[in-house]
Amino acid sequence: MKTISSRDNPLYKELKHLAGSSQARRKAGRTLLDGVHLCVAYLEKMGLPPLCIVGETALLNEEVSAIIQQCSDSHTQCIVLPDALFHALSQVEHGVDILFVIDTPEIQQPSRLTQSAVLLDRVQDPGNFGSIVRSAAAAGIKQVYCSAGTTFAWSPKVLRAGMGAHFLLEIFEGVDLSDLLGRADIPVIATSSHADKQLYEVDLRQPVAWLFGHEGQGVADDLLARASYRVSIPHLGDIESLNVAASSAVCFFEQVRQQTSAK
Amino acid sequence: MKTISSRDNPLYKELKHLAGSSQARRKAGRTLLDGVHLCVAYLEKMGLPPLCIVGETALLNEEVSAIIQQCSDSHTQCIVLPDALFHALSQVEHGVDILFVIDTPEIQQPSRLTQSAVLLDRVQDPGNFGSIVRSAAAAGIKQVYCSAGTTFAWSPKVLRAGMGAHFLLEIFEGVDLSDLLGRADIPVIATSSHADKQLYEVDLRQPVAWLFGHEGQGVADDLLARASYRVSIPHLGDIESLNVAASSAVCFFEQVRQQTSAK
Repeated sequence: MKTISSRDNPLYKELKHLAGSSQARRKAGRTLLDGVHLCVAYLEKMGLPPLCIVGETALLNEEVSAIIQQCSDSHTQCIVLPDALFHALSQVEHGVDILFVIDTPEIQQPSRLTQSAVLLDRVQDPGNFGSIVRSAAAAGIKQVYCSAGTTFAWSPKVLRAGMGAHFLLEIFEGVDLSDLLGRADIPVIATSSHADKQLYEVDLRQPVAWLFGHEGQGVADDLLARASYRVSIPHLGDIESLNVAASSAVCFFEQVRQQTSAK
Repeated sequence: MKTISSRDNPLYKELKHLAGSSQARRKAGRTLLDGVHLCVAYLEKMGLPPLCIVGETALLNEEVSAIIQQCSDSHTQCIVLPDALFHALSQVEHGVDILFVIDTPEIQQPSRLTQSAVLLDRVQDPGNFGSIVRSAAAAGIKQVYCSAGTTFAWSPKVLRAGMGAHFLLEIFEGVDLSDLLGRADIPVIATSSHADKQLYEVDLRQPVAWLFGHEGQGVADDLLARASYRVSIPHLGDIESLNVAASSAVCFFEQVRQQTSAK
């Protein structure tokens, strides 16, 4: 285990750059997993990371020791930083100071849409994106397709909100959703206030693709027009719409309800 | 309409203090509604505010003009600020520069729990809180009870995430939830991974109170033990839990589904 104590250390400077810039993370194909929960989820689902960074004080933490133990039997490089240097890399307040540097997966987009999936059209908020993939993974959905203009799936904020869901999903970014809709072998369902049907009227026992849009503007008109159904979630109160992460959870778990009660 | 152009103006200093400090907002019983959507929702549901603040450039905006028109026929004080001074009050980026200063409602907590409600035990994140009340209001729920240690219901961040739901709800803060559970005339349902039943097995056609807890720790054990049921949302994927706002939306709209399909 190596200690870095200078801010001018080249590796530290590279980490600082990765931590601070979405552009840098995309370019390097690397990102940071912040905190014990995400690191443990990564170890369980994906294996060992190339790099493990720990704050000095966190060395005393039992969970951290266990993680370092796992990493030290491997090719993972472990680095200890003084707490102040660690905190400059992390967006987590009051957390335990451990993070992994990981390579973001490069996966080939399937040529056709054949299994239950989530399609995100310019969803902006990292917290929403993370909550959506967390709910999707819990509902047994395995694929997420993101349009250009959707927030970066592998930013530390999205990863934190996703709580490990990323490691259960195939996430495709920069997808031409309009093109994808033309290659869908399953119904594509968009939520919209201008809806053909209510959510609860749709048969969800078969695979479907769920299409959700931008927080303010919703799904783009051309995509909305090409969806198989536009469904609304019935409201009993005088509120225009739900938060997109709330709305997606309602849809995914209505699908779970129908799938599990059909058994 | 009055223009304030000095940072040393006493009213401006008071606004800056309100904008920057949750403590100050609680003490003054006042808060800020930021942006066109919230201001319009307030006008529709609550009436005219004591104070309306506009950035100079936003005076050219049609929606802002319409709002100022409504306010100017009344006792509402309208203030114009140079854009830079306005931006120091607002947390909204790329928004239209208008905000209302409003009095937070003081309402008497009912002595018994008799209608569908949401009980929040130390929910921390303003975005989660806002999303929960937005979903609750959309689901026709009218009361929200918050324990001490729950994030302040009337902070600008919560209000923005709530998207006007606050004006459809009675929100009680600093509530002793343990005491309230002893005065419940309806079932209290908590979500928990240690559950008696699955959500979909519970009859929700009658009023129920939903109990949700802290993002990391969940509902406190003593409250969980006193709930009428502990329910789980069935998962089909290997994810520990949902985000609390996602989970609450699933619960509220399962209630809506049962209520509307029972008709």
